[in-house]
This record gives sequence, C-alpha cells and structure tokens, in this order.
Amino acid sequence: MSTFGSIFRVTTYGESHCKSVGCIVDGVPPNMSLTEEDIQPQLTRRRPGQSKLTTPRNEKDQVEIQSGTEFGKTLGTPIAMVVKNKDQRPHDYSEMDKYPRPSHADFTYQTKYGIKASSGGGRASARETIGRVAAGAIAEKFLQQINDVEIVAFVSSVGDCSMDRSCLNPDFMELLQNITREQVDAAGPIRCPDPEKAEKMTKIVEHYRDQHDSIGGVVTCVVRNVPIGLGEPAFDKLEALLAHAMLSIPASKGFEIGSGFEGTKIPGSKHNDPFVQKGDKLGTSTNNSGGIQGGISNGENIYFSVPFKSPATICQEQQTSTYEGSDGVLSSKGRHDPNVVPRAIPIIEAMTALVLADAYLIQKSRESTFGVVY
Amino acid sequence: MSTFGSIFRVTTYGESHCKSVGCIVDGVPPNMSLTEEDIQPQLTRRRPGQSKLTTPRNEKDQVEIQSGTEFGKTLGTPIAMVVKNKDQRPHDYSEMDKYPRPSHADFTYQTKYGIKASSGGGRASARETIGRVAAGAIAEKFLQQINDVEIVAFVSSVGDCSMDRSCLNPDFMELLQNITREQVDAAGPIRCPDPEKAEKMTKIVEHYRDQHDSIGGVVTCVVRNVPIGLGEPAFDKLEALLAHAMLSIPASKGFEIGSGFEGTKIPGSKHNDPFVQKGDKLGTSTNNSGGIQGGISNGENIYFSVPFKSPATICQEQQTSTYEGSDGVLSSKGRHDPNVVPRAIPIIEAMTALVLADAYLIQKSRESTFGVVY
Amino acid sequence: MSTFGSIFRVTTYGESHCKSVGCIVDGVPPNMSLTEEDIQPQLTRRRPGQSKLTTPRNEKDQVEIQSGTEFGKTLGTPIAMVVKNKDQRPHDYSEMDKYPRPSHADFTYQTKYGIKASSGGGRASARETIGRVAAGAIAEKFLQQINDVEIVAFVSSVGDCSMDRSCLNPDFMELLQNITREQVDAAGPIRCPDPEKAEKMTKIVEHYRDQHDSIGGVVTCVVRNVPIGLGEPAFDKLEALLAHAMLSIPASKGFEIGSGFEGTKIPGSKHNDPFVQKGDKLGTSTNNSGGIQGGISNGENIYFSVPFKSPATICQEQQTSTYEGSDGVLSSKGRHDPNVVPRAIPIIEAMTALVLADAYLIQKSRESTFGVVY
Amino acid sequence: MSTFGSIFRVTTYGESHCKSVGCIVDGVPPNMSLTEEDIQPQLTRRRPGQSKLTTPRNEKDQVEIQSGTEFGKTLGTPIAMVVKNKDQRPHDYSEMDKYPRPSHADFTYQTKYGIKASSGGGRASARETIGRVAAGAIAEKFLQQINDVEIVAFVSSVGDCSMDRSCLNPDFMELLQNITREQVDAAGPIRCPDPEKAEKMTKIVEHYRDQHDSIGGVVTCVVRNVPIGLGEPAFDKLEALLAHAMLSIPASKGFEIGSGFEGTKIPGSKHNDPFVQKGDKLGTSTNNSGGIQGGISNGENIYFSVPFKSPATICQEQQTSTYEGSDGVLSSKGRHDPNVVPRAIPIIEAMTALVLADAYLIQKSRESTFGVVY
Repeated sequence: MSTFGSIFRVTTYGESHCKSVGCIVDGVPPNMSLTEEDIQPQLTRRRPGQSKLTTPRNEKDQVEIQSGTEFGKTLGTPIAMVVKNKDQRPHDYSEMDKYPRPSHADFTYQTKYGIKASSGGGRASARETIGRVAAGAIAEKFLQQINDVEIVAFVSSVGDCSMDRSCLNPDFMELLQNITREQVDAAGPIRCPDPEKAEKMTKIVEHYRDQHDSIGGVVTCVVRNVPIGLGEPAFDKLEALLAHAMLSIPASKGFEIGSGFEGTKIPGSKHNDPFVQKGDKLGTSTNNSGGIQGGISNGENIYFSVPFKSPATICQEQQTSTYEGSDGVLSSKGRHDPNVVPRAIPIIEAMTALVLADAYLIQKSRESTFGVVY
Repeated sequence: MSTFGSIFRVTTYGESHCKSVGCIVDGVPPNMSLTEEDIQPQLTRRRPGQSKLTTPRNEKDQVEIQSGTEFGKTLGTPIAMVVKNKDQRPHDYSEMDKYPRPSHADFTYQTKYGIKASSGGGRASARETIGRVAAGAIAEKFLQQINDVEIVAFVSSVGDCSMDRSCLNPDFMELLQNITREQVDAAGPIRCPDPEKAEKMTKIVEHYRDQHDSIGGVVTCVVRNVPIGLGEPAFDKLEALLAHAMLSIPASKGFEIGSGFEGTKIPGSKHNDPFVQKGDKLGTSTNNSGGIQGGISNGENIYFSVPFKSPATICQEQQTSTYEGSDGVLSSKGRHDPNVVPRAIPIIEAMTALVLADAYLIQKSRESTFGVVY
Repeated sequence: MSTFGSIFRVTTYGESHCKSVGCIVDGVPPNMSLTEEDIQPQLTRRRPGQSKLTTPRNEKDQVEIQSGTEFGKTLGTPIAMVVKNKDQRPHDYSEMDKYPRPSHADFTYQTKYGIKASSGGGRASARETIGRVAAGAIAEKFLQQINDVEIVAFVSSVGDCSMDRSCLNPDFMELLQNITREQVDAAGPIRCPDPEKAEKMTKIVEHYRDQHDSIGGVVTCVVRNVPIGLGEPAFDKLEALLAHAMLSIPASKGFEIGSGFEGTKIPGSKHNDPFVQKGDKLGTSTNNSGGIQGGISNGENIYFSVPFKSPATICQEQQTSTYEGSDGVLSSKGRHDPNVVPRAIPIIEAMTALVLADAYLIQKSRESTFGVVY
Repeated sequence: MSTFGSIFRVTTYGESHCKSVGCIVDGVPPNMSLTEEDIQPQLTRRRPGQSKLTTPRNEKDQVEIQSGTEFGKTLGTPIAMVVKNKDQRPHDYSEMDKYPRPSHADFTYQTKYGIKASSGGGRASARETIGRVAAGAIAEKFLQQINDVEIVAFVSSVGDCSMDRSCLNPDFMELLQNITREQVDAAGPIRCPDPEKAEKMTKIVEHYRDQHDSIGGVVTCVVRNVPIGLGEPAFDKLEALLAHAMLSIPASKGFEIGSGFEGTKIPGSKHNDPFVQKGDKLGTSTNNSGGIQGGISNGENIYFSVPFKSPATICQEQQTSTYEGSDGVLSSKGRHDPNVVPRAIPIIEAMTALVLADAYLIQKSRESTFGVVY
C-alpha cells in the first residue's frame, strides 16, 4: 500500500501526469520548528537534470505545506505536503503503447489492475518518491534535534568501478565515521566521495549514455549517533525495516548491512565485535555488525548498501513483444537518465530517517515505563 | 513486534527457556485440509543436530494444533500451534553472565528492555523461528493448492566456496527452474545441490568447527508458479516484503533479488528482460528481474539470496568487556553450531510462503471487483 | 491516528486555518468511473449555512482530485483530494484565548500536544470531516456498483422530540426499508422524514438558537442490500467497526445497532429473528439484530443510531476557568450552529461506506479461495 | 481479525471444542512483576456457573503463562497464555444441526466461511473471550502500577429494571466516584451495587429462566485516575476505541459515553462542563463529557454503558427454517444462561484496560519528545 510506518507514518500519492504528488505525514511530534525551508533542500537534491544545469531551477518541485503547522511550529497533527506536477495531462495513445517496456512496470500494472496510467508504470514512476523525500526531511529534522543523528548516503559503485566497502577496510570505516553530505555533493554530480573513483564512474556513465544505454550502481548509507535500543524483535528488527524501506525504492535490487555478503567469508572469531567501554557506555571496537545486534541498534554506526539496476528505459531499439504477444521492435524516444544512483541518495536518506523516527518513538513508549517501580 | 502480515497474519511467541514456543495464524482460508502432518516435516528440517544423527529424533519439536481446525479442515478461524520446550527452566547466574557475548543480542536486549532472559538474547534465540516455520507450512500448503506454487531454498555458498549464482549463468538459471526440495536434502546435510561444492563446503565447516570457530554462508531461494499481480506499490512492493521477511531472520545480513548486486554492472540493453509469448500469457525470455517488475510479480520465477553471518557463539576465548566496562576474557562452553545456513532453509521457505500468501489474498480482494461493469 | 481502514483506507489531514483540508484514499478498486461530480454532492450536503441560503453556494468546499484517476477512471492507485480553506490564516491571540472553552478540545489538545492551533481544537474542527466525506463518496459509489448498496441517514430526534425508532415499531421498520436520501432532503433543513416531527424539531432548534444556546439530537442510518458475510471476528466484528467509525465523528456520544438499548428489555423468545426463505437465500422474518449476527452481516438491513451532544460553542456567558486556574467568564462571539445533527448525516453515510467497502474487500479475498478443491 | 491494539497488542485464538483457548500479548512493558496469580482472578470472575456453586471450582479455566516472563518478571517479549478446554471433541451431527439457530452466528459463519465449527458459531463462542480477559488482566496491572488507574464495571439494568444512570443524577455520579470491584461482587451474583435493584433484577432473571426464556441488560463501567492526553485524533479518538472494543464483545448492541443518548436533550448551556482548578491541574466541575473531550482523556472519570441483548439460546421451541429453507421447529436442549450481563463485567473491564494501556504507550512516545528544545 501507500502507507509506511506505525507511529511516525507517511502516506504518499501521485504519479507522473496527475495534478500533484505529495504525502500526509502523521505522528510528527509537536512543538518542532518546521517550514518549507527544512524540506526543500532534499527535494532539490532529488530533482532530475541537476548535473546539466549551471543555475539551479528552483521553480521546480516546490513543496507547499498544507496543514499541521502554525507560526512555523508543528502542531502534532498530520502534515500534508503538495508538489505540483508540471505535465498534468495524461498523454495520448501512440504506436509505442502497444508494447510493454521491457523490465518496466507497464505489464505488471496492466495485469494487476486491469488498467494502467498512460504514462506507463503509474506509481512506479520516480515522481512517487517526492512524497517520501518530503516526509523524510521532517523525520530527519526530528532525529537531528533529538540526538544529533546524522544520515549520509553516497555512491560507492557504478558499473564495475567500486570503492572497497569491506568492513575490514579501515579506510572505508574511517570514511563512514566522517563523511558529510556536503562532501558528497562537493564530489560532483556522481556523488562519490573518492575523487579518482568519481572521475572513473563519470566516464562510465558518459560511455553508456553515448551508446543510448544505461548502467547501474550501488549507494552506501551511514547513520551516526543512533540511540541504543531501536528496533522491535522478532519481525520488526531494525535491519528488516531498513531492508523493507530500501527495496521499496524503484529500481533497487538488494540490501546488505554491516559485513553483508562478503562478511559470510569471515570466521566468527574475527567477525564478532568485542565490547569496549566508550565514554559512559559500552560500545564495540569493530563494527562488522553494522550497528545492529539482535535486531536492535547498539549505538555504533549503522551502515548498509543498496544496489540499483541499470535504468530500463533506453533509446536503443529493443526486440520484444506487444501486449497481445506479437513480436516487434520497441524504439523509445527522448532523453533518459543513463544512471540513477546519484538521485537515489536523498531518497535513501529519507527512507532511513522514516524508519528511525518511527523506531525511536516506539522505543520511547517503552522507556517511559522503565522508571516506574512495579 | 511479533506479528507479520495483514490478511494472512502470523503472531509468534516464545524464547529458549519458557514452557513452549509457537504462534497464532490468523486469516487462513477456510475449508483447507490441514493436520499436524502438514506442518511437522518443515519443523523437522529445522531441528538442530540433524546431521549427526542416523535416526530421526521425531520426539523433538512436535507441533500440536490447538484451534482453528475440525475433522482435519480449517475453519477460517485462528490456528494456534504449540511446541513444548525441553528445557523450561531459566538458568542460574554464572560468571559468564557478567559479559555480554560479542555480536550477540545480550547487550542490546538488556539496554532496550532493562532486563533480559537468563538465556541471553530472549527472542533473538533460534527457537523463536519455530512459530514461523509452523505458520509458513500452512501458507505453503495454501499456495500449493491455489496455484502449484513451489518454494525451494538451498545453500549456495559457505565461506569462500560459492556456486556461480549470476543471472547470466545459464546453468544456474536452469537449476532454479528444476531444483526440488528432495534434491536439496539428498545433497547431504550441507543442503547444497552441487555435489562438488557440497563436499568442499562440508570441509570448510568441519575446519572451522575443529578450530572452535564458525563460518557463514548464503542461501538462495526460488519460487515457481507465482501468480502474476502480487505485491502492492509503493511501500509494499513484493521484493520489499521479501526483504523485510528475510532480514527478520536471526543472523541474516542482506538480501538480493534477481541480478542483485552483480547486476548493477550489466548495462540496461542486456539487463532488460524482453517480453515473449509463453503459452496463453506474456512472459520474459530472460529473468534478470527475478520475477518482479515495479514491485509486482510478473509470473516468472522469483529468486533471491540471503547471506548469514558466521555464528557469534564460539568456544574460543574472546577478549571483550563486562556490562560494567571492565576488560576480560569470555570463554563459552558447550557444543555450538559452526554454521547455520542449512538450518536456515526451512525458515526462509516459511517466510517466503507467508509473504506470498498474504500478497495473494490482498490481490484477490482487488481482482474480485474486475468483472463488475461500473 | 488519521488513517482508517485496512484494504480500502483513507488518511485525512487539515484543520480550520491551514491552506487546505483533504485526504488520500488508498486501495480504491481500479477501472471504476470517477470524477469530482461523484464526490461534490455529499460535500455540498455537509457544508455549513445551507438552511439559511436560497441559492446553493457551489463555490465553497470544491473538491479537486489530485491523483489516481485518468480519463475519468480509477487507476487502482491512491486518490488524493484537496479542498481549499477560505480562511487560511491562524488568528491572533485574544482575551478569550486565556480560557479553554468548556466541553471543547482546547484543553485536551493543549495538554496532549503541548501546543494547540490558534483556532482551538485543531483536528477536532468540523472541517476535519471534509476528507472523510470525500473518501466516503468513493466508497459509496463502489458499493452501489458492486451490489446496489444503499446508505441513508436521517435525523430521528432533536432534544426531547423523537421518532419512535423501536425495532418493534412496524412503521419505523417499514420506513427503514423505503426511505431515500431524496426524501430526507425534501423533508427540509432538519432532515427528519416525519413532517410533524420535523416541524417540531425545527422549532426546538429555533428556540435554543434564540436563547444563544444549543441542543443535541440523534441520527439513524440504514444500509440496504449489504452482501452476506462482511465483518471479521473476533475484534473486527462489523458492528464494532461501525461503532468505531461513528464515535470518531466529532460530538457523537454513542451508538446502538438493531434493537440497541431498548432491546435489552425484550426477552429472547421475542427478540430472536427466525429464519425464513427469501427468494434464493435465507433471511429473517424480523430484524432485531440489525442485520448483523456474530459480527457478520446476514443480508438484512443494517440500521443503527448515533447521538450527538448539544454543540459546546454557545454565545451565552459561561463561568469557567483560565488555563492557569483563575475563575472567570468566557463570552464567545459570532454566529454558531445551535444544532449539528442535519450536517452529521453525510458524515455518517461516509463513515458507513468506508467501513463496508473495506469489509467487502477483505471478505472477497477469502471468497476467492472457496472454489478451489483443496 | 483476531488482533487488537497497536503497541500493547493482543491476539486471541480458540473456539468451544478445540484443545485450548488463549492469547499472545505483545508489547507488555518489561520489568513488571507478573504471575498467573495476577491473571486468574478475572478469569474466575468470568467463569460460567458461578452463582449456582457454593464452592469455587478453581480447577476450571486455569491459565498457564507460556512465555515472556522469567522469575516472575516480564521480559518485554510476547506473553502467551493458554487455558485448556474441558470438552475438546467436536460434537457429532444431530437433527438440530439442520437449523441455524435464530439470532446466533451459525448462519453467518456458514455463509462467510463455507464451513462452520460443529459447535455452531465458532469464534462467536463465549470462550473466545477468555484470551481477552487474560490479556486485560496484564493491561490492568500495568495501568494500576503506572497511575493507580481503577476500572470497575457493574450491572446497571436488567430487563426493565434500571438504575438511574443519568449524568444529571448526583447519586449516580457519586457512585461512579466510589464504587469498587469488591462492592460489585458483594452485591450478589447479579453484580448490581444497588441492593433493591439487585433483588428485583434477580427476580427478573429467575422469571425468564423459569419460562425457558432469556433477558438482556446493561453494564456500566467507570475508569478513575486516567492520565490526561490519551486518545489519538481523528479516527482513534479514545471513545472510538472504547466503542470498538465494547461492540466486539459477543451479544453487545451499543455503547454510550458520558451523557450518551439522554444527553442529547440537555442544552449546551447546561451540558458544557466548566473548568475548575483541581489540586495542581485543571478539571471540570461537572462531567457530562464522560472524561473525554475532542477524543482525548481530560483526567476526569471515564464512564460508559453497554447494552447486551437477551441470550439467543433458549429452550423454548422456535419456529424457524433449516439451512435449505424448509420451515420447521427448533428445540434446543440443555441448560442455558438466561442472562449474561454479570459475566460480561470482567470482559468489559479487560477490553477497557487493553484500550487504555495501548493509548497510554502511544501518548508516552509523544511526550518523550516534549522536553527537547527544537
């Protein structure tokens, strides 16, 4: 469905060619200062076409808060947000509409619903993520205020060019400890903080773009200053909620936390994170667990990676079939994004914030009862 | 929390040393034949100690249906199932209880709840999964009856020994098309269907076992005959629900579907799955998508992989800290499982069935309205 | 929270002085013809000030569909609807703001959230119900199309003037069988279909209005052509969902279904509804149960009544206390509605439709499995 | 479905002739002392046949905690509870099974599920409420510990003999302030605290019992020491959750809170509850609102009433129809309860506690954020 979260809860709406896209965010704590200026920056980072523009086109994807705040403060009531669509008209039927686009949602939407939006995939459109990013900006502000929580995502691979993101690589673990959102954006449109890799990744994207083809990549995200105790066993372990959130992002194909797939090769004696005193609380000297043990945050950095497939829309001719089963050739027109991972970054940050804000509030309801002598 | 699913919904209970573990399964369709004999086989596959036994110890982990069936038929009412614990007594305090076990849930449970079970991780215990497996067996029977759905999981890597599970490997895609649960179990206790790999994997496990150490691995799961149309955009995409389910299994560290992480290196022109007529419906000639497009099943095989970390409990001495922050050495006693992936197989199959049964029922509520002329 | 329903699900937003009010309706079946013209009539019936106007002021509370439809058909995706507020500015502090208004939500909102909207009760505002009425209009159209379901609410009492709504009164049961929405509206602004009572009720309202006072009343609602089998034991019995829905409407104080409170005086031998053959299915010859047995609709008319308290806002001086606990006199200004029951009618109809549409879809998911031979 | 609540959440199972009935309670705060002795008393109050016995039959309906506690303390993990059924065998087909019992759930269950338990209504059985009462006892203990919350229900009418429960009756309001559970039970098996009414009610029940008939009644419930701020606008207003809970109890036909139906006759000037300083916080001098304003508790006593219909099972012959539509006469055998309201009391107290414990925890999650300077 279109609702995510239980206490801090977002419901999104909208597709490509309707009047607007947006969301309702319910359960936002009251008394928090909040205006459109807290939300717009991440929407702006999500916008298409950023890398080809010399001036920011601020007129696009402007968010407008409809409810839930007064005099710049949250009321504790639902916050609705609206972003107008520029192209509000469903398009007319064309020859190309006979073909479900390969690896797109055209076919599955048509079969599931018995109808589909003229734009094709309907809610599979990237515009659906606007509501998420707007809601996530509120969640993120809340987490910052509560515990200085920092969420930073960046591109860690494009095609076959990859940073070494092993949990055994001290440089990568150091980077996770220090990387800022500003550094990520300063790294150029590819949003990879390793300058050499960034240059190579950019060339890879240009290569596929010039061939009217596309290429995928991986985004890594780190969260610092997470309170201990977030996540609800057994089914709502914190990593399970994060995985759910990440796999709900269009074009994502996976998720790994901490040592991930490669970690299966590390024996327990080396993989286990020993406990050490850190300031006034217990921490771990390594962090192969990725900040979560038994489904519950342990106070160390949470970090995970998410692969995104090569975009399905390409301008090469593709041999495929019509809805009716006749073989044919589909030729897509127009300019298409040869690689989506840089734009996925604010979406990943948003979904991460939504998961953590909800988990935080649920845990707080429990902690409220600790002090009582039963 | 301890509830999973919306229409077909399981709630589990129990930890290591309480009286019993089990679950309530709500929303099971009525009129389905069901007895304990439908449920016990997967519980038996999940039991510990199987590989060292020449005779099946059937007396262990016996499930008992409490409600929801009569004369061997489901009533449509909740089905409660109970499995008695053999060791029902919480253990006494020992020297080792001063130490939170590294990479275990002891520390996070203690901090989250202000108390923990004497057994340590409480619900992080593997016994928590018994209720899942029992519930999953019901979901699986339902899916088999409805559409001959087949769910088969197997071990695809242990340590650094891995099958080539690339979507571009025709042998692996062929294996996914044909592999049966019987073949998996016939492959020996390691449950890897490639005999050569299985032998090597077994040696790896024995190696770490002899060193009082442990090692991880990866389980791959394939689902055949999935009806088209399952999964709910935007947040409850089918792959998001599967990822949620898999990351909720103890010790799992990730999830990838279809081409997964490696697929990010395949350009769109090659990664896209062209449509072709298959019998009376549309299918795809390749299946890099892993059976899901736009969050909705497309009728092709769904396949995904889940990495499991090396078990945290090892009998080597470990340098770590007490809860109070004093350095010390933790020495665990007893026999511990050096590798968990074979036993994870029925759990993964169960969680997969639970996701699909729920998605199926939700989609059916929609399809019921298609025939109406509005 | 601000979300209602599980498969057919509405989320509302908005308070008195924000930019707009509205909702997102998720889970609307696809392929249903739908435009604003299907929704506006019930919003127009809900508008304030109707009874004093000779011409309909159609410019007010105009709904605008944002998403989820194309070319006048539902897509199966979320339908967002927006109604602009005329007065979008929070008002400035006044002397009266020192006092929480008696029997209003000012005090409880302030205490619960630590802040309140300048308009006072925030989401306790009647404008919150606009999103419900808009969503309910969609649910109602769906139910009409599916099974000719008819939902008609009317005023059955104002102050001490009441229709005899006993289940033992054949005239009332006859009225429930035949009453139409057109008849209700034709009965004049008080919306009571008994002309004599209507006249008396009108005089009662005028009496209290002239005294700057207010008076309550009761709304009765009947639903005809409900499919058999709706409602989910144990906690989501159909009457429990209806009661939840009705008590969520501002100013409502109760709910009774079928024979209700008075029915407790009727012995079982007379209260039981005998079964009789009706056409091709079983029905009951009396309907003291109100169309629901064991929490499940039995195909007979569902009817229930909902009392609404006298509006709390009156222009008489009221002896009360400030937030700080100082005694004082509160004098409210302006024109206020001396009686709300006629305007509650479309809200009750909307909430009823939302409950039934959701229950219908859930039951359909189960029915889909009946035909299968297990 | 069979789950109730969001953070403090119960799932029940079981019908008349299965092995056991019971529940899983998830979200119970940790570190609370809890044993079977905290739960058994309310189960014992719920047992049938109490009034005819001179010695308590303690062997019946014995609850056994399965999980979630250790050494008498809650762990924060799910608490499963089991009560064995004495009669575990589904009964054989008899002549009477041709007839759906009038005003019973036989017909609706058969139609909804396409099958029904041999006992008839399946989950409509009163035994379903055992899980609720067990769960409610935990919720109640939590509320007592947290804020000395007191929940007391009593019979306020049987047939046409009724206490004057008007909010304008100072004696009744005084009784609500002081009544204890001990006083209710001391009043005799009818559980009405007014001795004269109790005697008359008893005679009414005996009258209908002797005629092989049955009669209904009303239960009133008061809750004292409710924290201010519980309840979630818009759809989860506290009175909406209570109404949902009450109408989910078998045989209940309504709900009214505070002034209820009669209150609609009281003009606003008299119905409004003026604020006054009470100790260190604001209260109201009257309580026509019933302790809730705008859906949120205001700290005054919450009180409400619930009517229960005359039991449907009577031993008189009833003219009705078979499932196939043939007229005939149904003669039920055995001893049946001529009136259920005294036994409904612990069920109402349990459901009330479940609503409040959940609302409390949700509100605590919000309050946790108030102290933060944003």
